[in-house]
Amino acid sequence: MGRPAKGRATTNAAPTIILVRPQLGENIGMAARAMLNCGLSSLRLVAPRDGWPNPKAERAASGADVVLDKAKVFDTVEAAVADMGRVVATTARNRELSQRIVTPRRAAAEIRSWTAEGDKVGVLFGPERTGLTNDDMVQADTALSIPLNPQFSSLNIAQAVLLVAYEWAMAGEEAPAERMSDHSTRPATKDELQNLFDHLERALDQSGFLRHKAMRPAMVNNLRALLQRTAMTEQEVRSFHGVIKFLSKRKHDEE
Amino acid sequence: MGRPAKGRATTNAAPTIILVRPQLGENIGMAARAMLNCGLSSLRLVAPRDGWPNPKAERAASGADVVLDKAKVFDTVEAAVADMGRVVATTARNRELSQRIVTPRRAAAEIRSWTAEGDKVGVLFGPERTGLTNDDMVQADTALSIPLNPQFSSLNIAQAVLLVAYEWAMAGEEAPAERMSDHSTRPATKDELQNLFDHLERALDQSGFLRHKAMRPAMVNNLRALLQRTAMTEQEVRSFHGVIKFLSKRKHDEE
Repeated sequence: MGRPAKGRATTNAAPTIILVRPQLGENIGMAARAMLNCGLSSLRLVAPRDGWPNPKAERAASGADVVLDKAKVFDTVEAAVADMGRVVATTARNRELSQRIVTPRRAAAEIRSWTAEGDKVGVLFGPERTGLTNDDMVQADTALSIPLNPQFSSLNIAQAVLLVAYEWAMAGEEAPAERMSDHSTRPATKDELQNLFDHLERALDQSGFLRHKAMRPAMVNNLRALLQRTAMTEQEVRSFHGVIKFLSKRKHDEE
Repeated sequence: MGRPAKGRATTNAAPTIILVRPQLGENIGMAARAMLNCGLSSLRLVAPRDGWPNPKAERAASGADVVLDKAKVFDTVEAAVADMGRVVATTARNRELSQRIVTPRRAAAEIRSWTAEGDKVGVLFGPERTGLTNDDMVQADTALSIPLNPQFSSLNIAQAVLLVAYEWAMAGEEAPAERMSDHSTRPATKDELQNLFDHLERALDQSGFLRHKAMRPAMVNNLRALLQRTAMTEQEVRSFHGVIKFLSKRKHDEE
């Protein structure tokens, strides 16, 4: 039942989110909430404008207090990234710096490969109004830009943190892209489907529905194809047996 | 310069976001902001608790007014999805219903393929506290669940809209996952690099650095490999020419 790989993910294997000179406590709290939703809990703050701790951040965290309680505060970006092996800087704008710019998805894959090699990774997010300065950006080896609507680009800092953290979570996700919602049942086996088709065929034969010998094979095949397409669950197969049984009985009663 | 494919994307080719019985105006506004960041602008509201229009929604939209102005209000989910060919319902929980559940990424790919076939697509999001009811869910052909931290799953409605809209935007994104930030320059050509190496070699020859005939080939190759590894831009090549020229001059002056 245990998932040891996930346990390890809370040490070096997960990146640290570093908010640089954040202005609003609400945004720090919402960023913490976004992080924890995605399984991240290591937060650093560089010179938060309104000091630290900040009650407004706690209110906005909606239960992600563990992230805020463990947050470390630094005076400078240099100090905040000093122990990091790799640093990614988020930027909304094109910069004069010649830097490699990656999407959040590419960044997530690279972060996973760096942490797998034992590197400690930090992701910088700039202040609300101005974003990161060039002096901040040069602390990073890679720039990250979220390629959204060029006509309306106004993500707030907590939304940017959410998207980066979400891509990180997805990059390690082993869950299937598609599943069935009902855990009390399972897809029907081919055997169960065969039994159902047989039951249906018998019932239709008895009812006279398949009395045209020449058309019979085509009609049976079309019905089978129709039921196969629905990808029935074991429970639905049982329900369908009931439906056939019930309908057949009515037929007999009327006779 | 024009991108006609993007223009078409604002008609049937983009899904409609449908907020079912939303409670807080702030969340409607933030959802609109998240949508427009991702290039979505078609919004429907089913029985918003505080009526419509809502000044709190406008304040929270941060400029995404166009989405709110065009929003359509309906009394029931049935009415809101009546003209839709496909409906996706977002859910945080496992349901008793036997429904296909997909991730936002899978849903985005499916939505793109449905709209490409001309289907109108709606995505339902439930009220803040309770989420969609089973009666709402059965209006949809597909359920969407965001597979985040099972120990802390508390996305608000605008964050859920952001992630679904973001995946939709990424599914149609032709932008490269990686690029260079500085548009005023470009990667150096091999020809330009060759000229630079020649320049460096001449300068080092003149300086006497390469005077050991036997070691010369290895030293030259190591220098070339080092400079190749930096993947220089055309501008950086020009700067480097300047550096060599300047250093060589100083050398001659000292002699």
